[in-house]
Amino acid sequence: MLERDDRMKVNLNRVTKDIETLASFTATPGNGVTRSSYAKEDKIAKDYLKSEMEKIGLEVWEDGFSTLFGRKEGKDPDAPVIMIGSHYDSVKNGGAFDGVAGVVAALEVLRVFHENQVEHYYPIEIIAMNAEEGQTFGPGTGVSNSRALVGRFKEEELDIAKNEEGLTKRKAMKDYGLIPNFEDAKRKIDSIKAFIELHIEQGPLLDKSNIDIGLVEYLPGIGRYKVKFKGKLEDSTAPMQSRKDALVAASHFVIGVNKIIKDLGHGITGTVGELNIVPNSHQFVPEYVEASVEIRIFDEDIINKINLYEKFMKEIKMIQAETNVDIELKEMTRIGYPNPTPPSIMAKDNLQMMETACKKLGYSFTIINNGTGHDAMIMAEYVPTNLIYVPSKEGISHHPDEWTDYEDIKKGIEVMLFAVYEISRLQTKWETYQD
Amino acid sequence: MLERDDRMKVNLNRVTKDIETLASFTATPGNGVTRSSYAKEDKIAKDYLKSEMEKIGLEVWEDGFSTLFGRKEGKDPDAPVIMIGSHYDSVKNGGAFDGVAGVVAALEVLRVFHENQVEHYYPIEIIAMNAEEGQTFGPGTGVSNSRALVGRFKEEELDIAKNEEGLTKRKAMKDYGLIPNFEDAKRKIDSIKAFIELHIEQGPLLDKSNIDIGLVEYLPGIGRYKVKFKGKLEDSTAPMQSRKDALVAASHFVIGVNKIIKDLGHGITGTVGELNIVPNSHQFVPEYVEASVEIRIFDEDIINKINLYEKFMKEIKMIQAETNVDIELKEMTRIGYPNPTPPSIMAKDNLQMMETACKKLGYSFTIINNGTGHDAMIMAEYVPTNLIYVPSKEGISHHPDEWTDYEDIKKGIEVMLFAVYEISRLQTKWETYQD
Repeated sequence: MLERDDRMKVNLNRVTKDIETLASFTATPGNGVTRSSYAKEDKIAKDYLKSEMEKIGLEVWEDGFSTLFGRKEGKDPDAPVIMIGSHYDSVKNGGAFDGVAGVVAALEVLRVFHENQVEHYYPIEIIAMNAEEGQTFGPGTGVSNSRALVGRFKEEELDIAKNEEGLTKRKAMKDYGLIPNFEDAKRKIDSIKAFIELHIEQGPLLDKSNIDIGLVEYLPGIGRYKVKFKGKLEDSTAPMQSRKDALVAASHFVIGVNKIIKDLGHGITGTVGELNIVPNSHQFVPEYVEASVEIRIFDEDIINKINLYEKFMKEIKMIQAETNVDIELKEMTRIGYPNPTPPSIMAKDNLQMMETACKKLGYSFTIINNGTGHDAMIMAEYVPTNLIYVPSKEGISHHPDEWTDYEDIKKGIEVMLFAVYEISRLQTKWETYQD
Repeated sequence: MLERDDRMKVNLNRVTKDIETLASFTATPGNGVTRSSYAKEDKIAKDYLKSEMEKIGLEVWEDGFSTLFGRKEGKDPDAPVIMIGSHYDSVKNGGAFDGVAGVVAALEVLRVFHENQVEHYYPIEIIAMNAEEGQTFGPGTGVSNSRALVGRFKEEELDIAKNEEGLTKRKAMKDYGLIPNFEDAKRKIDSIKAFIELHIEQGPLLDKSNIDIGLVEYLPGIGRYKVKFKGKLEDSTAPMQSRKDALVAASHFVIGVNKIIKDLGHGITGTVGELNIVPNSHQFVPEYVEASVEIRIFDEDIINKINLYEKFMKEIKMIQAETNVDIELKEMTRIGYPNPTPPSIMAKDNLQMMETACKKLGYSFTIINNGTGHDAMIMAEYVPTNLIYVPSKEGISHHPDEWTDYEDIKKGIEVMLFAVYEISRLQTKWETYQD
């Protein structure tokens, strides 16, 4: 196939221009990209994307949750659609790549299809989602529009979740000109043949190993907990016996989590990766520590067999008794989801095809199963889904310094182009490539 | 005595003006006080202090290390001197009170003596020391001028220690117009009858308990260690068995220190009060942790009986074996000092007198044994020394927000005034007050 399609060239200038233009739609010029959902910059960005979609003759519309679609009809308009894209909203003072890279990738794929008059059996839709970032309306409110699309958005969230200005999601959407329409946003699952998302890694692994492409096999399920340790502030001269040292308690917990999870064997990992210590001074017995626990689930069965919350509480009770520190455990649940969530398995056949694509294109790649709340995680539960990572410089993300070389994005787009071409062109399944 | 001396009034306006004037001699206006040793602002501050001393007829001179003295002669010029004061240098972007409060207190005491024509047997000297802050020339270089005064300053430090601009201490002193003169700076120990320092607490305890005065019984000896844990950065999805989790290793160490020190019984405390975790993100297995260990010694014997470094190393070897994390232990020694240093015991009789003073003056007080490297710590090894603390708002220090209410400083000065009056006026020892 590639022999025939050397004419299909991704245009780096266009990609660069898209990303730089979208980055300019920010509420915080000079201090990263702030394109909060339903803000003014959101509208301007969407207008830009619409006009780019219209330039290549796509059918453009928005759904009842403000997700933007651009459809290129296939030979069979009734055939299930191949959806490609990501989200275009950002965190506060975020970077120019998180989300946008995947939207621009999808746009560029259809531009290449357009200018090469590629014929395809299946319709292809660019999907530019909104409200992916949970930061805007608080924990558990992210991947909003993919949840709406698969019918997993619970209405109560609209009135519970509030943004920084104190607006509920419903009010913010209303001010944006949107009456959230659940039925309109929901897509029939069997009308979607595949969902493919390109995203920056938001981690350092590809960049550190100098690997071009990360192909996700599954996004492990996630369980999140916050643990608060409330001790007593004292000078470092305070007697040992009467102390309530929040860091000693937190240290017991770090070791406890490590042991509990290790004992559960493969299929689960657990990490205390973050401690916020107050005052964090050599001179004082720590008064307060907040720990973040991240559980990742590879084996769905494990969730059914064990109750992590209970296991942690048992550990905490022992630590409380030993250290006299008050400890509070909080599950960070998402509305309508269990904690932890089950793993999201990516489509295996399309994954193998992408491996073949990397080989043919001469790009280094690796299977990589990190990452957290992407729209692909939601989609994977319902439709064949794949996720392509491109490197993030030093793993920095959600920060003005977030960076991916445009050349690296181009490589990712080429892998996506290969895949979309293969999946879309013939009514039959794509052929398995053997080198 | 107090009946007779109600005329002896501390003048709050003068004290306020002194502190505000000295605060204006800063290299960082609008961003705290930066009066680094041997900088331009140091000179201006010293000129101000000199001129205030001369106004009340003191004999003024500087020693071979740039410590400023102002002497009020007593009836017997050959009698040992009562030294009162503190340091007038500051950290970078520090506050207006650390050090200066004690210098101004001493100045105000002699002003009150002067205007009330108080007669005293023993000579009294204000001592305004320089280079107390170790920050300027790096760890281990603080309390410089008190070390010079007692003959404990090793010449090598002049050529090893460098400030931010890369100047050695010797060069910085030379540029200041000073050829460090060890003999000239050294005072005969038996020529000093007492040293009394007033200082802000630099901790939250007085402020939190709303107590006026802290009287120090001893400054516990200090042992400081830095421990570096070098693990491996991985995503939270990395298998548990092959991890090198720097925070798990650090947690073992926090617990280990707590246990080791607890087992040593009273006479010693040990705190890991500070962890710096990289990247400190819920998403990643921590790659690096740096821990600060603060040991405080109340019982000198304990230092001779145990070898803390060895105990910590034994613990570290076990942790390394269990976690596969590389661990490095570093003693934070000061030039010419053991680690840990022995405790510095304050003069008991003068301390009791100050308790009496607080009671008579109606000020709440407490025995408080926190605090680290004050000049009083050095002096206490050689001469009867006392340290009076006044509250630090929220314990903030070494920061532009450092604050002590002027009324609180006034209370501290009154206690000092009481003590100096009592110690200085008669050739005999001061009478014990019984209420």
